[in-house]
Amino acid sequence: MDNNHLVIMAGGIGSRFWPISSEQKPKQFLDLIGCGRSLIQLTLDRFKGVVPMENVWVVTSADYVDIVKEQLPEVPAGNILSEPCRRNTAPCICYVSWKIKKRNPKACVVVTPADHLVPDTEAFRKVASGAMEFAAETDGIVTLGIKPTRPETGYGYIKADMSYPSSRKLNIFRVDGFKEKPSLEVAQEYTRSPNYLWNSGIFIWSVSTIVNAFRVYSPGISSLFEKLLPVYDTPAEQQEIDRIYPECESISVDYAIMEKAEEIFVHPASFAWTDLGTWTSLREQVQQDQYHNACIGDNIHMFDSYNSVVHVYGKKRVVIQGLDGYVVAENDGELLVCKLSEEQRIKLFH
Amino acid sequence: MDNNHLVIMAGGIGSRFWPISSEQKPKQFLDLIGCGRSLIQLTLDRFKGVVPMENVWVVTSADYVDIVKEQLPEVPAGNILSEPCRRNTAPCICYVSWKIKKRNPKACVVVTPADHLVPDTEAFRKVASGAMEFAAETDGIVTLGIKPTRPETGYGYIKADMSYPSSRKLNIFRVDGFKEKPSLEVAQEYTRSPNYLWNSGIFIWSVSTIVNAFRVYSPGISSLFEKLLPVYDTPAEQQEIDRIYPECESISVDYAIMEKAEEIFVHPASFAWTDLGTWTSLREQVQQDQYHNACIGDNIHMFDSYNSVVHVYGKKRVVIQGLDGYVVAENDGELLVCKLSEEQRIKLFH
Repeated sequence: MDNNHLVIMAGGIGSRFWPISSEQKPKQFLDLIGCGRSLIQLTLDRFKGVVPMENVWVVTSADYVDIVKEQLPEVPAGNILSEPCRRNTAPCICYVSWKIKKRNPKACVVVTPADHLVPDTEAFRKVASGAMEFAAETDGIVTLGIKPTRPETGYGYIKADMSYPSSRKLNIFRVDGFKEKPSLEVAQEYTRSPNYLWNSGIFIWSVSTIVNAFRVYSPGISSLFEKLLPVYDTPAEQQEIDRIYPECESISVDYAIMEKAEEIFVHPASFAWTDLGTWTSLREQVQQDQYHNACIGDNIHMFDSYNSVVHVYGKKRVVIQGLDGYVVAENDGELLVCKLSEEQRIKLFH
Repeated sequence: MDNNHLVIMAGGIGSRFWPISSEQKPKQFLDLIGCGRSLIQLTLDRFKGVVPMENVWVVTSADYVDIVKEQLPEVPAGNILSEPCRRNTAPCICYVSWKIKKRNPKACVVVTPADHLVPDTEAFRKVASGAMEFAAETDGIVTLGIKPTRPETGYGYIKADMSYPSSRKLNIFRVDGFKEKPSLEVAQEYTRSPNYLWNSGIFIWSVSTIVNAFRVYSPGISSLFEKLLPVYDTPAEQQEIDRIYPECESISVDYAIMEKAEEIFVHPASFAWTDLGTWTSLREQVQQDQYHNACIGDNIHMFDSYNSVVHVYGKKRVVIQGLDGYVVAENDGELLVCKLSEEQRIKLFH
């Protein structure tokens, strides 16, 4: 376990949850489900016992470094990496991979977004530990694939070759290909087949594997960060990162590596999982009243209302009457009332 | 005009406009229509040119004296009377009447609530001045009656004897009787008849007339305040008022005086008038967009929404989608969403 490292990617801005989420404090730093812990705190909690705290890394925007330090005091300050600008996931993963390789060339790394929700922590730990064991023993790149429970059109899919497992001990299979967010018809087809899994965006690999993959498939980005090896963990590091980061291509790790590399595996998992991308998905993750309303807040009173989600922090009084299928969210005086069926337009509204 | 006095009754708590109105700052102190002036400021403005500022009196709860001083700096501090507890309108009017009588026995007084809205100030001033002239010349008690424009069930009505006017110069008639808030059928009947007028709750009388009326029709209340004549305008006044006020019967001036007195007159007026008692009435007083939405706030954005009223102070961003016929009001994080057709239940909700 001492070689296990965790990378939490926490640079997103979460605009679909406005006004609860804002660019000043995006959703990964919010107690979105009202449990007392923010999504990034829940993410860290999920890996306790899998990765030692001194091996936890967070890559985030420079704007959010202080929030991360405040919310994750267990994470060493030197492991919180500050991006001067947004460049998608490939540069972020390349940067932290070179840092980890310098610290421990034998490291095995799990990379995760900061805004997922997995209620069954024990099941998650078992799958994550198994995948890390497999990645440490092989040169494989492993993804976590979630068994679909509905024909979701908001997720990407992984097509697995289920003909024989790639591990004697574990349910790990070769990946046949990655599929973009499908139409409803295609999603329904995927859901009927055992070969298609939701792409969780969680990756597991040994640090030497991913660094080599960057060298081969994304040499431009790789060389920028490899050249900085001498300055990592020195006072000059941030200045150099701030200098080279804007030069990086803005590209996801999926495009830069996953769709090009050969040895890609998937570990199917059947635990409940959501990337909490919409108010509708949030409503499903929160305890509902008998009329299927999900209320996050301490003083919310619903009358003649159904199938709605209401999110208002703290003890402020809220009275909702006569809504069916709406989201109502208030934060610091900013307010949204919107039909859940129209929530994909929220980004355009504000 | 030097004998003209104005009494603004400003002790209400405006619970029907929660959460915009609160017990800490009720509706008369709020810029409810978004014009830059609170209702009590608009009330004072309406009487400029009718009553000199040094003759303006405000009776309010002890809790609101500081707000009155802040919002009406033109009113002499000594004319702001502080009620230690709520006792309806009769004690309040009796108290201020004895105070005015001590200051000027020839005074003519107009008494008004603080939360009415009369957009046509000029028309209002003409009617008020005429009624004060009539009251000063006679022993009459004069009410302002508003010609109904709809069968409103939320107002009381005045039945006038229209057979001949009581003034040679003015449209002033004897009152046949006061009618409680009617059923819809009765309100429709009233609206068809020229004899029925909305009771505005605005009264005009000479100070000697009202003091005599209190002596005759409400001797218990009258004697309490008459006994205090020596202490008015002395340092002992507030202490004595705080002592006797709780002993007063809690009764409206309508029951205590108007329904018993003989010489009651009404001055019909046809200007637009509302007591701004409901969100529906507020919606009608504010500029509406082409979809009949009334928005009070600087940064409110409506999508697919109709016939609604949205009230959010300041520059906070508000997005409303897909509502028809609702009130949405936010103040200091407290929030109400309610069908306008159900707004009479708001008092029960919070």
